[in-house]
Amino acid sequence: MKLSDRAIDIQASPIRKLMPFADAAKKKGIHIYHLNIGQPDIKTPQEMLNVYKNYHDKVLCYGPSQGLDVYRTNLVKYYKKHGIEIQKEDIIVTTAGSEAIIFAMLVTCNEGDEMIIPEPFYTNYNGFASMTGVKIMPLTTFAEDGFKLPSNEKIESLISSRTKAIMLCNPGNPTGTVYPEDDLNRISKIARQHDLFVISDEVYREFVYDGLSHTSILDIEGMEDRAIMVDSISKRYSACGARIGCFISRNKEIIASTMKFAQARLCPPTIDQLAANAAIDIEAEYFVDILKEYDKRRNIVFKQLKNIDDVVCVMPNGAFYVIAKLPIKDAEDFAKWMLEEYSFENETVMFAPAQGFYATPELGKSEVRIAYVLNENDLLKAMKIFRKGLEEYKELM
Amino acid sequence: MKLSDRAIDIQASPIRKLMPFADAAKKKGIHIYHLNIGQPDIKTPQEMLNVYKNYHDKVLCYGPSQGLDVYRTNLVKYYKKHGIEIQKEDIIVTTAGSEAIIFAMLVTCNEGDEMIIPEPFYTNYNGFASMTGVKIMPLTTFAEDGFKLPSNEKIESLISSRTKAIMLCNPGNPTGTVYPEDDLNRISKIARQHDLFVISDEVYREFVYDGLSHTSILDIEGMEDRAIMVDSISKRYSACGARIGCFISRNKEIIASTMKFAQARLCPPTIDQLAANAAIDIEAEYFVDILKEYDKRRNIVFKQLKNIDDVVCVMPNGAFYVIAKLPIKDAEDFAKWMLEEYSFENETVMFAPAQGFYATPELGKSEVRIAYVLNENDLLKAMKIFRKGLEEYKELM
Repeated sequence: MKLSDRAIDIQASPIRKLMPFADAAKKKGIHIYHLNIGQPDIKTPQEMLNVYKNYHDKVLCYGPSQGLDVYRTNLVKYYKKHGIEIQKEDIIVTTAGSEAIIFAMLVTCNEGDEMIIPEPFYTNYNGFASMTGVKIMPLTTFAEDGFKLPSNEKIESLISSRTKAIMLCNPGNPTGTVYPEDDLNRISKIARQHDLFVISDEVYREFVYDGLSHTSILDIEGMEDRAIMVDSISKRYSACGARIGCFISRNKEIIASTMKFAQARLCPPTIDQLAANAAIDIEAEYFVDILKEYDKRRNIVFKQLKNIDDVVCVMPNGAFYVIAKLPIKDAEDFAKWMLEEYSFENETVMFAPAQGFYATPELGKSEVRIAYVLNENDLLKAMKIFRKGLEEYKELM
Repeated sequence: MKLSDRAIDIQASPIRKLMPFADAAKKKGIHIYHLNIGQPDIKTPQEMLNVYKNYHDKVLCYGPSQGLDVYRTNLVKYYKKHGIEIQKEDIIVTTAGSEAIIFAMLVTCNEGDEMIIPEPFYTNYNGFASMTGVKIMPLTTFAEDGFKLPSNEKIESLISSRTKAIMLCNPGNPTGTVYPEDDLNRISKIARQHDLFVISDEVYREFVYDGLSHTSILDIEGMEDRAIMVDSISKRYSACGARIGCFISRNKEIIASTMKFAQARLCPPTIDQLAANAAIDIEAEYFVDILKEYDKRRNIVFKQLKNIDDVVCVMPNGAFYVIAKLPIKDAEDFAKWMLEEYSFENETVMFAPAQGFYATPELGKSEVRIAYVLNENDLLKAMKIFRKGLEEYKELM
């Protein structure tokens, strides 16, 4: 009795696989600051929560496979506010961004086809690639220059007859990198020259700092038929548990085929979609305040990291993560050690070893991803413990 | 720009693909009785709906990838009531039964591996097979004998070096067939002899009539390590929109590998899981009444079908579907015609053409699946319209 190769080969989530060590630490009475997962502490908008409270239907029914009509109609308005012109028919509501990424991989690639993705990338792309048989061709970017998009030559050197798409995460998880419009135009030109699709994961659209603005792949010239945009409400409205995302393309063939995948799984959760719908009318003020809060956190984490000797880290412009290269050999060992062996005043810190965010073997072994999703005070305490732990760990090695 | 083969080849859902015709009919003011989809009209238990009303957390967080601990703990009790002894660690909560089936296909089969499934089967298995690259080897069963499980010889004739699993739906959608324990023992023996997994989709466990009892694959000897059971609350609690299911196996390797698929997509919806959890303590009375109601509906539909000349149909013992073989050539054409051309007193009926429930080409072309999910009065009216429509359609052909 042998399981499938994909079941054996798929990586364990670097964000979640250390959870048993965290649970053991908690059982010992140790408090853990969770910087390992992008679970914000920001309150979910009351407008959303009220939808659950006020749900009055007697039968909790299936919705349409493409998502509730009222929600898709409202999403068009949401994107319009962000300068993205789409129609309701371009949208398929998904069970979180995860499902939208799986659909994007399924619709563009056969098993064994290749997708170019700048690394480090959102680690679960590896898992989705294992599930769909897509081969990720990593386009390595570097902590030292803030994970900038490499030259056209570098990108084109990865293109083969099996390359079907380039996938971007913009703003980037785990890098925090925000691609300037010029970079997206470069990608667009390469995609057209080599007949590729471009998949853009834009779930951190709202989280852009330093007065920069975010450009969607859907706003880039020449991308009319080639672009698939993946989105999610998890981070935007601090509603990770609602599991609502969407898949957007202006290419009618892509939508028609993806609808068949969507029909097979029937529909995304119904009440959660209604909640997501209620969030769309939230005042822009909500985001102004949240952005201020995250900006403050970003500055705290970055400053604390800079205070530690030999840490390499460039200030990220977006999302709520930062990758730090540490002066150690094995960040996963360090992360485990922090949970199993270390505590300061009965507290410790959990973060994600970054190797799982790379596809190239051995890369990222000394890097960690820190999610700055805690309030100012907690972050300050967590970063202090992180620094102390790192110093002690270095001495032990 | 070419989409993937799987995107082009995947079938459109026969349950949902006629929806545009239904929408057009509705726009013309025609009322449609929906017998096409397993969306029960039974009220979702108030205990579940209260959970949405009373949700008090300020942040709608991710849950664990394996599902909420409280829910998995309670599920163990639920299965115990049904004579199925499992532990919390054997359960991964999924986003509906759909995701559990996808996981079962991914964990047992590589692309191109084969799975034997009695046909007609739940049509979306075809879609999930396209998504995962699994080749379905259909084991044809027949309306004339109530879709009985074929002989061991027939089953074994389908086994090749690439066969990895046998999948059953018990009670069956769309057949309503309930497999007696002897049949499951036969499957178990074949699975052991040929080193196969057995996947059992048991989402209609509660819907068994005529004093028969349902046997789970997990209760069959020799199935300790080989069985994967797929479940869902959609039908049990009339909560299709909650999208909560589960994947169960006592094989620790299967659970460990499936957890990696589960981690990639992070978690199933949080509040919906809490609602599912609240349903577990529902009195057995709830099901007694519902079963009575469905039994009544089953009898109505069956009697009405028997009243139509030349319809082949055996009384089903379970679920809430019946397959009827009609004296026409093309049931999909008939289904479309009922929506586009026909109405009686401004009403018509929608049902699912059954061809999409088969994998063997041309099979099921004259069959339809009727879901008896409406109340007695509506069902009587719907079946009257069905009979009248069929008579008129036959004359036109």
